[in-house]
Amino acid sequence: MVHAPARPPAGAPPVRINLYSDTQTRPSPGMKDAILRAEVGDEQHGDDPTVNALTDRMAALLGKEAAIFLPSGTMCNVIAILTHCRKGDEVVAHETSHILHSEGGTHAALTGVQIMPLRGPKGMFTADDVRAAIRPKTRYAPPQRLLEVEQTANIGGGAVWPLAQLNAVADVAHGQGWSTHMDGARLMNACVAAGIPAAEMAAGFDSVWLDFTKGLGAPLGAVLAGSEDFIGEAWRWKQRLGGSMRQAGVCAAACLYALDHNIDRLADDHANAKALARGLAQIPGFVVEEPETNLVFFDPRGAGITVADLSAALRLQGIQISGLGGRMRACTHLDVSAAMIEEAIAAIRDVVAKR
Amino acid sequence: MVHAPARPPAGAPPVRINLYSDTQTRPSPGMKDAILRAEVGDEQHGDDPTVNALTDRMAALLGKEAAIFLPSGTMCNVIAILTHCRKGDEVVAHETSHILHSEGGTHAALTGVQIMPLRGPKGMFTADDVRAAIRPKTRYAPPQRLLEVEQTANIGGGAVWPLAQLNAVADVAHGQGWSTHMDGARLMNACVAAGIPAAEMAAGFDSVWLDFTKGLGAPLGAVLAGSEDFIGEAWRWKQRLGGSMRQAGVCAAACLYALDHNIDRLADDHANAKALARGLAQIPGFVVEEPETNLVFFDPRGAGITVADLSAALRLQGIQISGLGGRMRACTHLDVSAAMIEEAIAAIRDVVAKR
Amino acid sequence: MVHAPARPPAGAPPVRINLYSDTQTRPSPGMKDAILRAEVGDEQHGDDPTVNALTDRMAALLGKEAAIFLPSGTMCNVIAILTHCRKGDEVVAHETSHILHSEGGTHAALTGVQIMPLRGPKGMFTADDVRAAIRPKTRYAPPQRLLEVEQTANIGGGAVWPLAQLNAVADVAHGQGWSTHMDGARLMNACVAAGIPAAEMAAGFDSVWLDFTKGLGAPLGAVLAGSEDFIGEAWRWKQRLGGSMRQAGVCAAACLYALDHNIDRLADDHANAKALARGLAQIPGFVVEEPETNLVFFDPRGAGITVADLSAALRLQGIQISGLGGRMRACTHLDVSAAMIEEAIAAIRDVVAKR
Amino acid sequence: MVHAPARPPAGAPPVRINLYSDTQTRPSPGMKDAILRAEVGDEQHGDDPTVNALTDRMAALLGKEAAIFLPSGTMCNVIAILTHCRKGDEVVAHETSHILHSEGGTHAALTGVQIMPLRGPKGMFTADDVRAAIRPKTRYAPPQRLLEVEQTANIGGGAVWPLAQLNAVADVAHGQGWSTHMDGARLMNACVAAGIPAAEMAAGFDSVWLDFTKGLGAPLGAVLAGSEDFIGEAWRWKQRLGGSMRQAGVCAAACLYALDHNIDRLADDHANAKALARGLAQIPGFVVEEPETNLVFFDPRGAGITVADLSAALRLQGIQISGLGGRMRACTHLDVSAAMIEEAIAAIRDVVAKR
Repeated sequence: MVHAPARPPAGAPPVRINLYSDTQTRPSPGMKDAILRAEVGDEQHGDDPTVNALTDRMAALLGKEAAIFLPSGTMCNVIAILTHCRKGDEVVAHETSHILHSEGGTHAALTGVQIMPLRGPKGMFTADDVRAAIRPKTRYAPPQRLLEVEQTANIGGGAVWPLAQLNAVADVAHGQGWSTHMDGARLMNACVAAGIPAAEMAAGFDSVWLDFTKGLGAPLGAVLAGSEDFIGEAWRWKQRLGGSMRQAGVCAAACLYALDHNIDRLADDHANAKALARGLAQIPGFVVEEPETNLVFFDPRGAGITVADLSAALRLQGIQISGLGGRMRACTHLDVSAAMIEEAIAAIRDVVAKR
Repeated sequence: MVHAPARPPAGAPPVRINLYSDTQTRPSPGMKDAILRAEVGDEQHGDDPTVNALTDRMAALLGKEAAIFLPSGTMCNVIAILTHCRKGDEVVAHETSHILHSEGGTHAALTGVQIMPLRGPKGMFTADDVRAAIRPKTRYAPPQRLLEVEQTANIGGGAVWPLAQLNAVADVAHGQGWSTHMDGARLMNACVAAGIPAAEMAAGFDSVWLDFTKGLGAPLGAVLAGSEDFIGEAWRWKQRLGGSMRQAGVCAAACLYALDHNIDRLADDHANAKALARGLAQIPGFVVEEPETNLVFFDPRGAGITVADLSAALRLQGIQISGLGGRMRACTHLDVSAAMIEEAIAAIRDVVAKR
Repeated sequence: MVHAPARPPAGAPPVRINLYSDTQTRPSPGMKDAILRAEVGDEQHGDDPTVNALTDRMAALLGKEAAIFLPSGTMCNVIAILTHCRKGDEVVAHETSHILHSEGGTHAALTGVQIMPLRGPKGMFTADDVRAAIRPKTRYAPPQRLLEVEQTANIGGGAVWPLAQLNAVADVAHGQGWSTHMDGARLMNACVAAGIPAAEMAAGFDSVWLDFTKGLGAPLGAVLAGSEDFIGEAWRWKQRLGGSMRQAGVCAAACLYALDHNIDRLADDHANAKALARGLAQIPGFVVEEPETNLVFFDPRGAGITVADLSAALRLQGIQISGLGGRMRACTHLDVSAAMIEEAIAAIRDVVAKR
Repeated sequence: MVHAPARPPAGAPPVRINLYSDTQTRPSPGMKDAILRAEVGDEQHGDDPTVNALTDRMAALLGKEAAIFLPSGTMCNVIAILTHCRKGDEVVAHETSHILHSEGGTHAALTGVQIMPLRGPKGMFTADDVRAAIRPKTRYAPPQRLLEVEQTANIGGGAVWPLAQLNAVADVAHGQGWSTHMDGARLMNACVAAGIPAAEMAAGFDSVWLDFTKGLGAPLGAVLAGSEDFIGEAWRWKQRLGGSMRQAGVCAAACLYALDHNIDRLADDHANAKALARGLAQIPGFVVEEPETNLVFFDPRGAGITVADLSAALRLQGIQISGLGGRMRACTHLDVSAAMIEEAIAAIRDVVAKR
């Protein structure tokens, strides 16, 4: 389930409509201005006022005692698992999770944990699934230590875990003495879609992080939150991984701007995703999953065209969409307008018609 | 899928009929005599003649260039994976495999690999299953490096991989540039059952090991075999893990004795297993899997008795059988006679009848 | 040999003269403008043109085939060692090296290597020292795989390794089949001081990195260079460590600006360091090491004042200098003018006089 | 400081007088008889009565709550460090220690700790040395977690740490919140030489182990002791490393025999070592270290002969002594009689005279 844009076909023009990923947004003029005006200091000594403002604000937003700024979401997962677990422990997560497929085997390589893959529709599992995965506590079985969820579930179609289900799986985990961790790369999409505050969404989880490079539109950075003790230990791993930076306020300023300007507008992305899904569903032979947030997964093969061929044909028109796990994934974000969605639907319809 | 004997109920007599595991055989008088007469030296410098005789003989038996003596089968798996893989690599194996469930999470803890679990009946998978598990070669996915099989498949009911299927999955792996490893804890059971020499059974695999503490009846030890280079590197890991011993010929002598005396007789264990299965199948409500070697898995719940209750009732009569993965597993070996099998069937029938 | 600014004494004013570290420079207006105008893309897919321009330029500057942009110098060391070594290998380095003391034990924790500490004045060692450290190649000794040097040597007083000595130690290492790695956090200081191009200075080393947050004055980032194969493998570790970013051109633009504007001026920092050393040497009882670049180590205890007391007294006047390894370390950089140096000397003289 | 016997010169007869190592003793007839009569069970489930008798007895002897049987002394060190430390921690030990030089880099490879080497004569250091090695507790420095000593100190010439010095260094460690670990490979030699019981010698150490394959003369095995909790966790690592065996009572029986018969007689080995040292000291040009236990280190070069040449010449006469760290090390043990010592002295004198 690796996700990367295919090399463009020969003669492909620049990308005009980027439905490949919300990670590819460019900083807006307002965001650039915020970067320019950022007051900075030595982040690695805790002396960058802009980074500190961001982590304070994120701790409050996520309902945790403390938070830490990191260069990427993957580093949030690596540090959270290093902090929660000792090597040889087991993490229980969905079989489609990012930590299993898209982080290069880092959790075996660096954190030394085994991941037990749970099954279930839309990237989610139930409290009963967790209960069935509990191992006897013997020397033969790896000690289970952590439950992980993705909110929204990426390969699950951008689906939103219902709050009650999140709390139910977290309760089972805590009952076993495990910790709980939420990969909240697109957490704000879930919060906007469900109308539930982030702190409430993450309440059952001992750690949670938010990525600023996806729908929020910042150039780089993610923030991991948890208890004071957890974040204190996370700082040690940040240093060891080489995630400690210097005048990182230039990046944090963009994140603060995103918190002010780019959260409510995620609703537009969701509306665009629904419009795209409706348009695609009218193409005979297409199987389209109902989007809950900003991701639209669809299978064009019933219309007699492969994922690779459709991607390549669109790319020649400057439209980028790519395959993921055998399906196509279109992603809406702040650089994609409603008009672009209409244009994309028309282009896809046209490609299919011409075959 | 952890396997350990339950604590005996209060008042339980000593075990008379041990169907719990073939790991619990006692050395026979002939084997003890071999231990006594062993010529020994400093094994860790390669100077123990009895250990050297064993590894030479095992390399020939398994059809490999070289072999190494180790204190346990688990260490064979640990060292093989450490030698084949670099940390962060992925190993493809069956979802019921010993390395995933019964080695304490060691492959994440010590070797730093991720294990991708394949599904399939009887602990086996097909060449198509392996092909479907091939990941794209990108930075996001862990590099796949090794295919592992268990011959016989323990949780698969002691099933014997057909030679053609072994070679087919190994071919797919080698075609991808992966190495192949066979966990041959009970390899000789497979060879005796299938009438195929060990070297032929292991021919598609770059490394293979045999456990001497199971059906072969030695007190401790296992031998891992592979190419000269592989065994050279394995020696380094043996040293690092603390598996290098001194006058280990006292143990190797028992293994040599087992090779001479305890292989052909595995056919008796298989006959006993079939007799046990036949007997159990006649108990109304029992679901019994057809044994291929020395393991008999059965489910007594249809007769209105749980695994735990049946185990406890038998244990009070000096008969030990335990649960494994929700079923019961009975294991035949050189300390279990045909008469004991008849007695066990009668005892089980009696327990069920009295409920 | 940990280096961090002490907590400021109560009532301390803001820092006016920062001799604590060259890591604490603020981006200049010109640099900020470069950030603003940066063309960006998805760095983690190799699609950020500004990052690509930086890595191309750095590969040429350092005389290597390829280069990779990373969030910190520590990550350069971590990735270089992960790429050169397998776990259980040994790295030969100076006993005062950054990798031993200031990276949180990361090389044991994450890369799994042992570091053999060599002794020698000024953070350097000789070819004979390396030859004396060669271990016999047996299973008992860790395999030696990498030689590491710091140019300039930080705890060595900012000393510059002579080119002939660098080449001599590298030759011994290569003769043994080891790789060689240069921690070039302050490499440009060495190049400016010695009048030797960076590519020539690093020619004997298979990998080398430069930190942009020290004398070069950028807010964050470092670039690691080596062969195509080395950088290809480094990318995998960058992904695993969470060092892959998105529109990282906003940071790389500052680094490109630094290459254009902040290298030649390092000579001013060196002149300021020499002026500071001359001034301090005139204070009776002070022992001052002759600076070769931008670091001035001195011991004030002969004047009857401790490192801690002198640091605190200066901090109350807005001057920050800190202790490192029992001495004081003053660091000159682009936010420190010649006039500030004069003021600092006067203040120190004054503190000592008033005791 | 790797120690392995050189390959014998062409034409060398079998070794008659083995001064190479006390690890090479052969089991005596009495010991073999004990092996034969051993009652055994499944050691990995805690059901081998002979292993249990050994660990109970060793816990009492070493003054700890519990103990665990392992296949080698190296595994004792590996498991102790895995249990005391988390990865990234630092262990403080002597620069000549076995864990640094003779375990293949295992502590970086498998346990993920960094070892800080302390200096000092005879393989020992003082409480002041430990105090000087204490790092500030910051994110930059690895967390210090464990102090390790060797009693006796092998490369230190078999020297015996005075009890007061052991307790003093342990007190400093505990005062810092570190744990303490004693590598007691030859602990009984120290106890016999000093007339101090093992429990008293190890009282300041949270864990301690004894090797049965050295002066005690058993074929294989070592026992690690500590608190109940420590040993509980050690069992998990034993399983993961592949150190769990089956009917290991066959080996433990030899260890029990050694406890009964081979401790008091270590005094003979010490007397033989002193006799050897006296004899060698009379050879002009030889520099001989005064032995405290069963190791005699000497430097023959003043007599115009190299370590390698002297070793080879003796080996041609069936006498084995080898070099270690630039010197020669002769080791006395139960297969070396007083008469053999006289013969060895005469042979050495003869080799030197004939040059």
